[in-house]
Amino acid sequence: MKNVRCAKCTKCGREYEALPGITTCACGGILDIEYHYDYIKSVFSRESLARCGDYSMWRYRPFLPVEPDSPPTPLRVGWSPLYRADALAQALGLHTLYIKDDGQNPTASLKDRASAMAVVKAREAGADTIACSSTGNAASSLAGNAAAAGFKTYIFVPSRAPKGKVAQLMIFGATVISVDGSYEDTFELSKAAIDRWGWYNRNAAINPYLSEGKKTVTLEIMEQLHWQVPDYIALSVGDGCTIAGAWKGLKDLYAAGFIDRLPKLISVQAEGCCPLNRAIATGEPWTPMEENTLADSIAVGVPRNADKALAAIRESQGVVVNVSDEEILAAMRLLGRTCGVFGEPAGVTGTAGVRKALELSLIDPDSSVVSVVTGNGLKDTANGIRAAGEPMLVKPEMGALLSAFGARDIRP
Amino acid sequence: MKNVRCAKCTKCGREYEALPGITTCACGGILDIEYHYDYIKSVFSRESLARCGDYSMWRYRPFLPVEPDSPPTPLRVGWSPLYRADALAQALGLHTLYIKDDGQNPTASLKDRASAMAVVKAREAGADTIACSSTGNAASSLAGNAAAAGFKTYIFVPSRAPKGKVAQLMIFGATVISVDGSYEDTFELSKAAIDRWGWYNRNAAINPYLSEGKKTVTLEIMEQLHWQVPDYIALSVGDGCTIAGAWKGLKDLYAAGFIDRLPKLISVQAEGCCPLNRAIATGEPWTPMEENTLADSIAVGVPRNADKALAAIRESQGVVVNVSDEEILAAMRLLGRTCGVFGEPAGVTGTAGVRKALELSLIDPDSSVVSVVTGNGLKDTANGIRAAGEPMLVKPEMGALLSAFGARDIRP
Repeated sequence: MKNVRCAKCTKCGREYEALPGITTCACGGILDIEYHYDYIKSVFSRESLARCGDYSMWRYRPFLPVEPDSPPTPLRVGWSPLYRADALAQALGLHTLYIKDDGQNPTASLKDRASAMAVVKAREAGADTIACSSTGNAASSLAGNAAAAGFKTYIFVPSRAPKGKVAQLMIFGATVISVDGSYEDTFELSKAAIDRWGWYNRNAAINPYLSEGKKTVTLEIMEQLHWQVPDYIALSVGDGCTIAGAWKGLKDLYAAGFIDRLPKLISVQAEGCCPLNRAIATGEPWTPMEENTLADSIAVGVPRNADKALAAIRESQGVVVNVSDEEILAAMRLLGRTCGVFGEPAGVTGTAGVRKALELSLIDPDSSVVSVVTGNGLKDTANGIRAAGEPMLVKPEMGALLSAFGARDIRP
Repeated sequence: MKNVRCAKCTKCGREYEALPGITTCACGGILDIEYHYDYIKSVFSRESLARCGDYSMWRYRPFLPVEPDSPPTPLRVGWSPLYRADALAQALGLHTLYIKDDGQNPTASLKDRASAMAVVKAREAGADTIACSSTGNAASSLAGNAAAAGFKTYIFVPSRAPKGKVAQLMIFGATVISVDGSYEDTFELSKAAIDRWGWYNRNAAINPYLSEGKKTVTLEIMEQLHWQVPDYIALSVGDGCTIAGAWKGLKDLYAAGFIDRLPKLISVQAEGCCPLNRAIATGEPWTPMEENTLADSIAVGVPRNADKALAAIRESQGVVVNVSDEEILAAMRLLGRTCGVFGEPAGVTGTAGVRKALELSLIDPDSSVVSVVTGNGLKDTANGIRAAGEPMLVKPEMGALLSAFGARDIRP
């Protein structure tokens, strides 16, 4: 990998060769992949990218830590649509808003970007089995991408994971262990099992390549915006890996001369589980919180990638904002009705945060904002119904229809 | 529309001007849009298409019945992935198999192609409200595409529609009427309401433009195969509109010189509801059937587009095959485990039919086949779990994990 310099510990600074099976530093710190930007500049530019016919995350290979001869993964991950959301912007009182619908990925979440990367690195490492713990989306994306590439998977999910995500795992043929406990319990059991059986480790933060896959979301956003940098990029935050990856992509583009300034991040967490935003707001080190939110994908009381995430928010001079479950459900309705985008609760939390940040005057209404929808609402239809209600049930007769409309004051 | 000649009745041959609001012929027959292929040839070729940067269904505009100045719909519909499925082909004993995953559309089904077309034609007709009846996917795709484009929708679904599809409708802000009856009852109530209130009609078969949208699936398949025509294209069949549209796309390509031969269609229905396949098999006119299958999207006892569908199957010298619910569930597992593709029951019915057609020696194992997955399994997770089972539940302790593995004979 001529483009990769090393894997460097974010805590002690120790450098490691970027071998495919590396995990964390001897000191316990998270590793970060570092690049030779001069080399990347010599082989990659906006112009060469514009000629690339591969509309998937692999169009950004010069920015990715994979061997030149590593084949891409079978499922088509990335190049999700970026919609200009004028009706929603108007509803929020915001000048310019774009929605990046990353629920439009093969297994219906942004996590496909990380899992596709994990599959490539597992193959480079010579593994045949991959394991992870997850609140759901990392799991289903790993199961799907691994199945398509011929890998076995062992997957640990907390028993609260929504049915849609569990159905995906089972269909993809993973060995699924539903853990009767919290996400933290689930993570610890997966760690013990991975240590015991030597499976390739796709646990976020532990595996430094995953955020490199996730960063393709901001590489795409910037290319889709024709390199016009927005003022803010809003993301829901749980484990911290996604926002860390998003920031890494932006910094890569800046370092390689693809963009000439950096946007600020808007880090959105649920009020019932916001350890990272609390750390930023108080200036204190982060401490664990309970996991009290219906947004299961970001209900992470002990974030695994706190260091990278906090650094990203601070470096970008970002904004932190917490939203209630009611505000999350309202954002589901708003996105559906104005954009035709159905996001899962954690998926729309970023958009809920944009609304809240405007209400709290944390951002200027004249700003331009990109809000990333990180997962599809079909993964969690129970909360979809909770957000939007049940339909009217009528007998198949016009009289019944007229009285149902009358009772609801519907006047066609 | 210089490319469109007229709308012609498939029953009596009467021709109509292709106005945006046309429905059926005075004789009751279904209309079919006819084109000026000489004009299309003069403005469109494989080479001009290869230079098109629009990776959505609208890249085929010269083949589509829309005004030149009609803007495309906001959601990105089409250009779903076509996967070469070697592992699945091997499992089935088939030489060459491709899976077209049309569950990778904005509202997660092939029906987005028809609904995007309906939204464009409704706008051309000056309407502000669109209505339809549907087993689910036409409804959710209409609701999503219409919401994004600023239209109101009234949607009639049978009360058996899966929760995932209903959740989509509600989130997209449709007025949803859940009809306590069969699909036929639902259709008749929607028809009465559309007549009464004058909404734009998105009922399949009634609106002749919808199959023109759906045909983009075969336009894409052929372009993605670099115009190498497969021996067969397999599709699940309910109302008949999808297979009719698929055939129309192939005939368009042939008439305009993009391909030099036509594939045969494999029409797959559920054993419990197969009125069209029964008509082909017996050579008798079709007659209604009960709707006995878990594949809700193709549980159509009174198909609305029987004429076009039967003509398509016959013209292509196609194969008909019926599959049991168990064979549908088995196809869900097979596609998930070998391809990482999670389809809903009706979505995988085409693939179940390929397997059955091989078992019955209806097709040669040396054939090349494209099987279209028409909808995402996340729309119907209850049947996903039914197909693949529940995960093991364990306490967060290694001892509990070891005994759970032992009980299931899992040896990592």
